[in-house]
Amino acid sequence: MTETTVLTLSYDGSDFAGFARQPGLSTVQGEVETALRTALRRKVETVGAGRTDAGVHALAQVISFEADGSDTEPSSLLRSLNALTPPGIVVTGVRHAAAGFSARHSAVAREYRYRIVPGPVPPLFLARYAWTVRHRLNLNDMRRAASHLIGEHDFRSFCVTESALGKRTFRRLDLIEIMPENVLGEHSLTVRVVGNAFLHSMVRVIVGSLVEVGTGRRSPAWMLGALTACERQAAGPTAPPHGLTLWHVTYPEECWL
Amino acid sequence: MTETTVLTLSYDGSDFAGFARQPGLSTVQGEVETALRTALRRKVETVGAGRTDAGVHALAQVISFEADGSDTEPSSLLRSLNALTPPGIVVTGVRHAAAGFSARHSAVAREYRYRIVPGPVPPLFLARYAWTVRHRLNLNDMRRAASHLIGEHDFRSFCVTESALGKRTFRRLDLIEIMPENVLGEHSLTVRVVGNAFLHSMVRVIVGSLVEVGTGRRSPAWMLGALTACERQAAGPTAPPHGLTLWHVTYPEECWL
Repeated sequence: MTETTVLTLSYDGSDFAGFARQPGLSTVQGEVETALRTALRRKVETVGAGRTDAGVHALAQVISFEADGSDTEPSSLLRSLNALTPPGIVVTGVRHAAAGFSARHSAVAREYRYRIVPGPVPPLFLARYAWTVRHRLNLNDMRRAASHLIGEHDFRSFCVTESALGKRTFRRLDLIEIMPENVLGEHSLTVRVVGNAFLHSMVRVIVGSLVEVGTGRRSPAWMLGALTACERQAAGPTAPPHGLTLWHVTYPEECWL
Repeated sequence: MTETTVLTLSYDGSDFAGFARQPGLSTVQGEVETALRTALRRKVETVGAGRTDAGVHALAQVISFEADGSDTEPSSLLRSLNALTPPGIVVTGVRHAAAGFSARHSAVAREYRYRIVPGPVPPLFLARYAWTVRHRLNLNDMRRAASHLIGEHDFRSFCVTESALGKRTFRRLDLIEIMPENVLGEHSLTVRVVGNAFLHSMVRVIVGSLVEVGTGRRSPAWMLGALTACERQAAGPTAPPHGLTLWHVTYPEECWL
């Protein structure tokens, strides 16, 4: 059986039409597959751990593809890919996993971080990586609201309606942490979300709903009602994509060779 | 006597031909003076705390100008300026100081931070804000080398030769701290430098020299020789501008009204 090659990627989502390969558009997966084709001199189809929408960033997206015995070894593949990919994509790691590994199906947890800059002064260095919300946000209320979402639930209210049609919408949320952070000298609020898997736009709808609570437009208890309603209109608006980063994907340790 | 109005600015140096006003070029000072002219309906000449070269960023540059009794009050001036300045400049604060205050001459200390990303994997989110050095750096050696620079010295070796001609080149360095930092998920080494004032390119030549030591090309003791030689060739190369940020300027508390 052939092994699997696994790449870790950082990318700036502002520069691409999303992660997933799309004919005629510059997407992250498309650009990396083009670079792989040149580096390995063969056509490669990759699988990604999480689809990210246009504008969403990744610190450590994971993609995998079937290795070939004659493929370049990891450290020189890393160097060639970084020479071949456009600015806005960096390959940060190359590893090998057992045959049958899939960046998507073998993942046991995913972490996303959403950055908000609250208040009257817009951010400068974080402008591309944070949602500017021109209000003060009540951190305690946001934390109380978030606590209702922890555990395994039907998250139908927190995803794009069409994407949920006829699909199982139960997911397990292990952690939502809301932490003030000083990043590049600027004050931000980071929402850290860890779960087994996420529905389309789920993190962005959760964050949009948390901000409704933070500004005082909704109460913390409203979040529980939004969850149990199981319909999209019950939750808050979808937060913009550029505040979101796919931060980390976890695999069982025994996957790695 | 009229009061002084004091602005704090963040800017991304990649977008401008430096801080100082220059005819026909887009500079930070020029852009802010144009915005002030529109906001206040009068011509304003500003003084900046520190000139930064093209490519150098600021988290908190300070500029001052003579107030006029009829000027807009601080919070609405802040809003109008942020609507008038181009992307890449954010006004983060507006305050008043006593007459005679000068952002340049009243400053008692300045802090710069220089960010380095060492190692084989280039940064993505920090690409505009850090110098990528494709070597491991020995932190202890860099710290030992830096310790030779603390105190009041003639820093002639660490500045652009022409800028030192016929000028007093003694400066007081209060602190050089070299700290590993995780910024936007990426590993960097931040050199934090605090002193009363700095010569032209002084922080960048200090950092370029510290990297010579960090890579092992020079010993920590070499730094002392570079300092005492009092000539530019004795020190290391000038680190690139985009790793540098003017971080903070300190004024005596009694300046503020």
